[in-house]
Amino acid sequence: MSDSEPVLFANEAFYYAFAGGDAAAMDEVWARDVPVACIHPGWNVLTGRDAVMESWRSILGSDSRPAIRSQGAKAVVYGDVAFVTCYENVGQGYLAATNVFVREGGAWKMVHHHAGPTAPPEAEELEDAPDLVH
Amino acid sequence: MSDSEPVLFANEAFYYAFAGGDAAAMDEVWARDVPVACIHPGWNVLTGRDAVMESWRSILGSDSRPAIRSQGAKAVVYGDVAFVTCYENVGQGYLAATNVFVREGGAWKMVHHHAGPTAPPEAEELEDAPDLVH
Repeated sequence: MSDSEPVLFANEAFYYAFAGGDAAAMDEVWARDVPVACIHPGWNVLTGRDAVMESWRSILGSDSRPAIRSQGAKAVVYGDVAFVTCYENVGQGYLAATNVFVREGGAWKMVHHHAGPTAPPEAEELEDAPDLVH
Repeated sequence: MSDSEPVLFANEAFYYAFAGGDAAAMDEVWARDVPVACIHPGWNVLTGRDAVMESWRSILGSDSRPAIRSQGAKAVVYGDVAFVTCYENVGQGYLAATNVFVREGGAWKMVHHHAGPTAPPEAEELEDAPDLVH
């Protein structure tokens, strides 16, 4: 197993919670012992676990929540911290995302999510390619 | 000096190079020994130092490059890795940015930049508040 696989698994767990509208699973995804932040598309910067989780409860509980899936995820691991870049397929369009993780209690937990608009990616950019492991 | 100050200094160096259109200074900002990535506003994900620096030479050499300055920077430090969230004041509008840094050779170097549109921030969000240090 490469260093990046557990990080990509944590990234998948994030999108699984997101796609399923599962606020309890989303709560499990995020770190508890270190500071966290989040920048939703078009939103201001949210800092602190309370603000971030409140935003997720609002988004996940919304009837207008889009279908979402992650494509083209790439992880870069720097010891106990890592970030993932990926595309979010939302309906007919795409967002580009940065997701930062730290190792907490033996598991990779999210500490930052940032997503925003992107140009339509080429097909090869949508393939999962965990080839940036450090 | 708090843990976050050197990270915020590196973040300022990034925006100084950006605002000054200084490609050589921008090259110094970015890490050399570990993988890097970049998501410019509306662009696809760039991976690898060659692609990232080529993008910066293109942006910094453009006549249509906007004036830019960073506001409301907050750093979160996790040992030898850190990320900064801030607002980029570009002309009449704002972008929200995530900048990831690693300690390389004793200095904080950028490994990832992601910027995209944001709602107009409140005045207090534009104050520099390095209060999220871990």
